[in-house]
Amino acid sequence: MASVAVVYFSGSGHTHLMAEAIAEGASKVTESVQLFRIVGEQITHGRWKDDQVLEQLAQADAIVFGSPTYMGGVAAQFKAFVDAASSAWFAQQWKDKIAGGFTHSGSLSGDKQGTLLYLAINAAQHSMMWVSTGEMPSGSVDQGDNVNRLGSSLGVMGQSAPNMSGAPATIEPGDRLTAVHYGQRIAIAAQRWHGH
Amino acid sequence: MASVAVVYFSGSGHTHLMAEAIAEGASKVTESVQLFRIVGEQITHGRWKDDQVLEQLAQADAIVFGSPTYMGGVAAQFKAFVDAASSAWFAQQWKDKIAGGFTHSGSLSGDKQGTLLYLAINAAQHSMMWVSTGEMPSGSVDQGDNVNRLGSSLGVMGQSAPNMSGAPATIEPGDRLTAVHYGQRIAIAAQRWHGH
Amino acid sequence: MASVAVVYFSGSGHTHLMAEAIAEGASKVTESVQLFRIVGEQITHGRWKDDQVLEQLAQADAIVFGSPTYMGGVAAQFKAFVDAASSAWFAQQWKDKIAGGFTHSGSLSGDKQGTLLYLAINAAQHSMMWVSTGEMPSGSVDQGDNVNRLGSSLGVMGQSAPNMSGAPATIEPGDRLTAVHYGQRIAIAAQRWHGH
Amino acid sequence: MASVAVVYFSGSGHTHLMAEAIAEGASKVTESVQLFRIVGEQITHGRWKDDQVLEQLAQADAIVFGSPTYMGGVAAQFKAFVDAASSAWFAQQWKDKIAGGFTHSGSLSGDKQGTLLYLAINAAQHSMMWVSTGEMPSGSVDQGDNVNRLGSSLGVMGQSAPNMSGAPATIEPGDRLTAVHYGQRIAIAAQRWHGH
Repeated sequence: MASVAVVYFSGSGHTHLMAEAIAEGASKVTESVQLFRIVGEQITHGRWKDDQVLEQLAQADAIVFGSPTYMGGVAAQFKAFVDAASSAWFAQQWKDKIAGGFTHSGSLSGDKQGTLLYLAINAAQHSMMWVSTGEMPSGSVDQGDNVNRLGSSLGVMGQSAPNMSGAPATIEPGDRLTAVHYGQRIAIAAQRWHGH
Repeated sequence: MASVAVVYFSGSGHTHLMAEAIAEGASKVTESVQLFRIVGEQITHGRWKDDQVLEQLAQADAIVFGSPTYMGGVAAQFKAFVDAASSAWFAQQWKDKIAGGFTHSGSLSGDKQGTLLYLAINAAQHSMMWVSTGEMPSGSVDQGDNVNRLGSSLGVMGQSAPNMSGAPATIEPGDRLTAVHYGQRIAIAAQRWHGH
Repeated sequence: MASVAVVYFSGSGHTHLMAEAIAEGASKVTESVQLFRIVGEQITHGRWKDDQVLEQLAQADAIVFGSPTYMGGVAAQFKAFVDAASSAWFAQQWKDKIAGGFTHSGSLSGDKQGTLLYLAINAAQHSMMWVSTGEMPSGSVDQGDNVNRLGSSLGVMGQSAPNMSGAPATIEPGDRLTAVHYGQRIAIAAQRWHGH
Repeated sequence: MASVAVVYFSGSGHTHLMAEAIAEGASKVTESVQLFRIVGEQITHGRWKDDQVLEQLAQADAIVFGSPTYMGGVAAQFKAFVDAASSAWFAQQWKDKIAGGFTHSGSLSGDKQGTLLYLAINAAQHSMMWVSTGEMPSGSVDQGDNVNRLGSSLGVMGQSAPNMSGAPATIEPGDRLTAVHYGQRIAIAAQRWHGH
């Protein structure tokens, strides 16, 4: 049975909900699904450190990377994790693992594609296999409840209007469903790739 | 008075409407605004040729580039124009001109950012000065009538649901207004840059 | 036995040599390797058409895309092929095929990464699985004979000084070897993915 | 007289040398040139904070952004600065300032273009005017001493073989000269843009 790890940073909670949806989708395929949330406390003087997380990621068959889009790119906290994982890169520990990515921001488009492109670049440095969204754009007016309503191809995008009220974060049903499907797609790919 | 040229390809007519909106905005600032529409008839065996257009672009103070996003990038017809303009690149005829870009597609996000990034790369090869959108994301739910509703930063994005009925193309009022503002911004930048 | 198709455009012949090297590498793994060279004669009024090529690509297990980097992106002729292949996209005929890419230009870096990013975006629209280079950067001074001397991660980059003499195109031994390795890697991935 | 600020992170010292070269070039045009080096000590729990730097950047006419390319993107420490500068973004304090960027890595190409693209995206979010390299690719074999030897168009790239010996960092003469020219180009653009 293939193992899927989801490693992500979330500031206001939206990306966390998307990570959970990815995990939910993967869980339809495999019992081995783990969520790793990057937190600021792991970062000292700009450097992230958590050897246990890196060890567990080295065991996974698939790694899905997630970050909000902050100022047109991955959050600094997520990048601190990525930079620390250069130790895994140097040893090519993640070579030929299955990879995927997701992001969330307040704008319908904004610069989310740039974030997904970056996640794919990082995965390529690790010599991973990148899994695309696998869903056609919903191709209709935005109703907030349809799969791939934002039309992303490289991975999953989520969008929510900025939450000013302090209420708990929520995500659009269509974005959540896209993430569920993608988690399932990733796990199926990992099973197939690893001959399960 | 600064001169602004808008050079674009349009398949189904949406990008044409955006080009006209850019021109409308620029016309609020300067009387010298020209639209150049790339058409398939200018392309023979994959190569675009129209010396007169290249001569007129060489005279412009600002050039705004526009293409629909087809398969995640500029349309082939637009790229044929870009490749032919490598003669202007070789002579650096467009060096220090003001540049900007816009695109349109059927998805709310899709891969439109990639198209704008490409337009900025091409402008950089020509040693141009790239003008950003200059509008904050509308930051609210999509109502179709607000400026920069899609939240683009590098240039202007427009989005319309695919038109299956054969009716004339239309664009969202918010996207049109974003294009009008951007055309004005480009022309103001060209005036300022050229000391008018 | 997995089948590998290499579809590419080449102007001055360098990208053609890289395509042959990809095919050479793939041939170490499978007997089913086909090269499809896009030519200007397939393009009328900016539109590429060759139904037989599209039919054969639909049968392949892996498709490797190649184009020189012209003005910071894929050649217009290659993009004309890509736009025509939107018929395959619409039917998602290439879904879950293995994908990869390569490019060539005259500069050591230049904007080749942008071309590879575009090839990956297009493959993602087709819901394909993207295979990274799988080679660490050579990490030494440029000697022209080492694998991945340019340090590319998303796919293969080749670079040759512009050829002014009219002599036949040649490519650097290191770039050729990188392409051979990548062709082999693609074919191995296709075999594994398809359970051969 | 226009003021130019260079804000950058440097790990092993190469990007620092490039920042100094940018400043040297700008100093040929204006006396007001400031270097701001991001350091890990400004970052607590992944968040960068230095109000004085942000206040000084708000006063500059031009801001040049620099970071090594780590794992295919800007260093986490630099991104922590960028994320903190979202306060300036929210107030659009940098709107219509002149912007530029530079990066350094160990590979001849690698993913440096991605870093420059990201710097341009971030500048666009701040509604800035992006200044391209303005130098043709050197177009010859790599001799290490010519301007724009790597052929970058969006900004300046530097490359040095990884330094294993612990000796002080050095950069290639050609890369240094490219940075000097670019600093000068940025300052001239700032003078012109601000009517000096």
